[in-house]
Amino acid sequence: MGILEDIHSPADLRALPPTKLPALAQEIRERIIDVVGRGGGHLTSNLGVVELTIALHRVFDFAHDRLLFDVGHQCYPHKLLTGRADRFDTIRKAGGLSGFPCAAESAYDLFDVGHAGTAIATGVGLARADMLQREGRRVVAVVGDASIVNGLAFEGLNQAGTLRRQFLVILNDNEWGISPTQGAMAEYLAKLRASDFYEGVKAKAKQILPKLPLLGKPAFEMLLHLKEGIKATVSPGQGFDQLNFQYIGPIDGHDIHHLIATLDLVKDAHHPVLLHVHTVKGKGCDWATAEPGRFHSPKPFTVCGGKAVIQSGGGRSWTKAFVENLIEIAANDRRVFAMTAGMPDGTGLNLFGEKFPDRYLDVGIAESCTVDMAAGMAKGGLRPVCAIYSTFLQRAFDQVFQEVVLQGHPVMFCLDRGGLVGGDGSVHHGFLDIAYLRGFPKMVLMAPMDEVELRGAMELGLTLDGPCAIRYPRDNVPAPMPDCPPFELGRARRLRDGEDAVLLCYGVTCSAALAAAEMLSQEGIEVGVINARFAKPIDRQMVREAFDLGVPVITVEDHSVSAGFGSAVLETAQELGLPVRDMTRLGLPADRFIRHASRAAQLAEVGINAEGIARTVRQRVRVQPAVNIPIVAQTRVGQVIPK
Amino acid sequence: MGILEDIHSPADLRALPPTKLPALAQEIRERIIDVVGRGGGHLTSNLGVVELTIALHRVFDFAHDRLLFDVGHQCYPHKLLTGRADRFDTIRKAGGLSGFPCAAESAYDLFDVGHAGTAIATGVGLARADMLQREGRRVVAVVGDASIVNGLAFEGLNQAGTLRRQFLVILNDNEWGISPTQGAMAEYLAKLRASDFYEGVKAKAKQILPKLPLLGKPAFEMLLHLKEGIKATVSPGQGFDQLNFQYIGPIDGHDIHHLIATLDLVKDAHHPVLLHVHTVKGKGCDWATAEPGRFHSPKPFTVCGGKAVIQSGGGRSWTKAFVENLIEIAANDRRVFAMTAGMPDGTGLNLFGEKFPDRYLDVGIAESCTVDMAAGMAKGGLRPVCAIYSTFLQRAFDQVFQEVVLQGHPVMFCLDRGGLVGGDGSVHHGFLDIAYLRGFPKMVLMAPMDEVELRGAMELGLTLDGPCAIRYPRDNVPAPMPDCPPFELGRARRLRDGEDAVLLCYGVTCSAALAAAEMLSQEGIEVGVINARFAKPIDRQMVREAFDLGVPVITVEDHSVSAGFGSAVLETAQELGLPVRDMTRLGLPADRFIRHASRAAQLAEVGINAEGIARTVRQRVRVQPAVNIPIVAQTRVGQVIPK
Repeated sequence: MGILEDIHSPADLRALPPTKLPALAQEIRERIIDVVGRGGGHLTSNLGVVELTIALHRVFDFAHDRLLFDVGHQCYPHKLLTGRADRFDTIRKAGGLSGFPCAAESAYDLFDVGHAGTAIATGVGLARADMLQREGRRVVAVVGDASIVNGLAFEGLNQAGTLRRQFLVILNDNEWGISPTQGAMAEYLAKLRASDFYEGVKAKAKQILPKLPLLGKPAFEMLLHLKEGIKATVSPGQGFDQLNFQYIGPIDGHDIHHLIATLDLVKDAHHPVLLHVHTVKGKGCDWATAEPGRFHSPKPFTVCGGKAVIQSGGGRSWTKAFVENLIEIAANDRRVFAMTAGMPDGTGLNLFGEKFPDRYLDVGIAESCTVDMAAGMAKGGLRPVCAIYSTFLQRAFDQVFQEVVLQGHPVMFCLDRGGLVGGDGSVHHGFLDIAYLRGFPKMVLMAPMDEVELRGAMELGLTLDGPCAIRYPRDNVPAPMPDCPPFELGRARRLRDGEDAVLLCYGVTCSAALAAAEMLSQEGIEVGVINARFAKPIDRQMVREAFDLGVPVITVEDHSVSAGFGSAVLETAQELGLPVRDMTRLGLPADRFIRHASRAAQLAEVGINAEGIARTVRQRVRVQPAVNIPIVAQTRVGQVIPK
Repeated sequence: MGILEDIHSPADLRALPPTKLPALAQEIRERIIDVVGRGGGHLTSNLGVVELTIALHRVFDFAHDRLLFDVGHQCYPHKLLTGRADRFDTIRKAGGLSGFPCAAESAYDLFDVGHAGTAIATGVGLARADMLQREGRRVVAVVGDASIVNGLAFEGLNQAGTLRRQFLVILNDNEWGISPTQGAMAEYLAKLRASDFYEGVKAKAKQILPKLPLLGKPAFEMLLHLKEGIKATVSPGQGFDQLNFQYIGPIDGHDIHHLIATLDLVKDAHHPVLLHVHTVKGKGCDWATAEPGRFHSPKPFTVCGGKAVIQSGGGRSWTKAFVENLIEIAANDRRVFAMTAGMPDGTGLNLFGEKFPDRYLDVGIAESCTVDMAAGMAKGGLRPVCAIYSTFLQRAFDQVFQEVVLQGHPVMFCLDRGGLVGGDGSVHHGFLDIAYLRGFPKMVLMAPMDEVELRGAMELGLTLDGPCAIRYPRDNVPAPMPDCPPFELGRARRLRDGEDAVLLCYGVTCSAALAAAEMLSQEGIEVGVINARFAKPIDRQMVREAFDLGVPVITVEDHSVSAGFGSAVLETAQELGLPVRDMTRLGLPADRFIRHASRAAQLAEVGINAEGIARTVRQRVRVQPAVNIPIVAQTRVGQVIPK
């Protein structure tokens, strides 16, 4: 472990003799495996870019030049080389390094990222700003092959192609479906000149296309089109005159010296260049390259005898509960069609796809397109179920509006990762879905408290004649509450009675509220707990009953307190003329982002775990008027009109 | 006018002898010019697709097959041919036909559309639904050359390319920068075989590229890439085996018989086909083809002596006020960089671009990319101003989140068409921007009441160290209110005192509120009017003062009452412990969409014009308790703690 500890900045890296670089790469790999093994995190994407990252920091000076990572799953080697090696074991932990690029953490991280397709567009913006201010900074955007087909990445390429200056896009192609044979062939094909590539890629395509899973094909072919388009309009010598990319590649992403030589060659091109780098996801770890998807972002693991054993998380995840219930439902409902946007494992739908291959589709990282396709399917008589993380559905906000809600199509959105997400931090929290969805007329918003309710919500959702969204967190399902009444549209569920305060809860916060109620009961405070089930339509009867008790009412949600569930309750109570003065909205703060930590620590930080809820109840019960407030009704014209 | 009046459905069209079709086209053109001339609407895009639409309905039966228009600016001939000719003069008017495809209006309109890039993706969804249900329906998506470069359209093509069945994309290429010479050349180039096209397009590109405005180039070149990519992977005979598009074209979009013959040829292709149709925007009208942008969506006009004179709207639009102030500001602030997403005329930024060409960019219909580029520019030290319609910023919701707000970058969003938009109707209202933006930590939301305030808001926005959004409607600026105090962050402006009720207004509703107050004063009701100026941060002092008066408080906003300005006021009042029982939130209804009509009629319908506001005040003043409500403060532990 001798080289890395002496690298405190990229300048130290540049001072190393070239012969030491392979050993440095090895050290970086070992360090990443060690740290991710102990604490979890992104593994295979980072192992794949070790040499590329070293080469980039050797050739460019990103204290001045601009380096942008797309998504940022591949930033660990970059963090290790930019002065953060000593804190690397804190990654994704509370108070530690972020698992994604993070501008507040280092000047070498230009943007906090986590969503796909942004690097090229932001890079074009930086390039234009620098041009206008006559700053000679180079721009390098590192984009994965799964991101480059995202619509935003395409729009970014379209804009970058207008630049008559240096602009380097590195296509980090780690398509793990390429077997060693094809990898060797990619080597053979590696050329700096697009004309040589052209024939080669066709041969390559013929060989690998039949071996790719169905869904990999279109993405790969679009890539081919892109390359061929680029090639076709850039003849040798014309590069400077054309508003377009010069394509170079593919080159071996694990040969440091070749990478450095190539980057040196293209570094000062006065036109946009797309450098196609072929990397192996999980490189350097046989067990990781064998299962690059499973080791993309594993829980902590131990390596023994050439194998890695991932810690069992214990418990049953919401994701698993969702997909198993969906499979059961779909067995009896042929209209159900399940879709995901590049997250088959994360949403659990890979299991659905195994069971019903003809009623399942992974559209890739293209949430907008996924939602529009779902709208088309609904129009065609199917019952599409879109399983998309809450944070990623933000990408399809306008499609939810126009193609789904405005048409009234019965698309069911299943929003995994609703609420705080733990180690992925501020780029991934599902903190706004209630706020951005509840403004849509006739949208139905549900959140179950346990798996029995999840099933109930899904079954109800499939009977509706319009769209709905069901949210659940990145967590385990709690033990089911007995005696679950059926889900009825807009009807809440009373979980516990109590005369000192009422907790109005949405989704998973019910469990914490019940635990809080138990704690408080020991202290002589009896708290009612209501499971709202619906953020839209709100159960008006529930709201009336809660506020009519004349005791403190506390709404609890794993979502921003701004414009969310609590606001919906408040709006309803106010419309009903109920006294809302003694109401408290608990949820995520509206004025700041919650940084990475464990989900449990984040819930504690914002006070929506059992302890936090109990604390709030104690405060409210002690200081608030425990009414009813006698209202002396007076009207301007002397007439009392009951509401 | 003999042929059109006998066409009550496409079946009637198909029964016509072919020789009558050119005369029918002429009738349709005359009808469109007549109706749009009298009432305004989309003109040149519709004149360009008359023959194409006739040909489509001759060859396909869209009672069964699927026809999707992208954006829908080109649906008038389609409406005339699908049983709506007798009501065509009601288009865009209250109770009349929609100016866009509208599913509620006709089974021939599959989706209500108005935003770009959706046709292919929804078409793929329909195709997949039909395949699963063994329905043999053909799919045709008509997409303009400005839409095809949208990221969503690209994602849609990427998905359509996976279909092993009929799927026809018609690229309606009406690039009006192509002069008659190039148009003739396009004729010469027209081929059904991609191999012939290939060399031709390169020659064409060489000729026209230098003549295109800068911003047209990348879009056009992407088109070339697309075509060449398509061509490159589809060799003759391989079409059926490849997951890809067969490119055909370009063909003359005004030769009905050739169009019909070509469509007949490709109609039953068992693979995706992209048919490139060259049309002339405004075809058949010299004055329209000469200025296709100006006549894209004109106000009513009169034609005389071969010229069309557009009615002067009278008054000064918010759009004009915005851009003229921005030009003045930018003259003294070199950091200002103005951007639009395909709406240079609509946002007024074309004028900015004439003045400051190096600090102006039209990114095309790519809102996501526009916002990300702005984020990059802000990171690079500029002050980007993004002028985007409120409804279209929905397309960039996630980019506003991650690339702008999460980073705290000082991007200023100028949201034209905030609120009700009149004839464009439900697909274009800016009815949710407050709701979807106010959940973002540290976002500043402003709305000016007149041009002096608009200037104040813009100047303040450019001093902020984070993002902000300023909204204003599709309307004229009202006469300025004298004695305008400077804009201070989070400070409201008191406009009028009155002891019977308080109107808390956001943006343009201030004028209506003042007018209502004058009307009410005549009736002996004195109403205070407050201009909130900020929806975020809300002026807490203003809220306290308004509610402390103990009279009805009415919030007024040209935005959904769900999660908008009124909700923000309510949240604040509740947090401050103020009595909110006697509060009313006026705005757009949360449970339905507002259909097309004049903006004035729409404002009246939802009750946020002067009459509507006065009516609400009268109701509230008469029936509500005119408090203060005496509160008997009791606490659980016997201690009164003042808030």
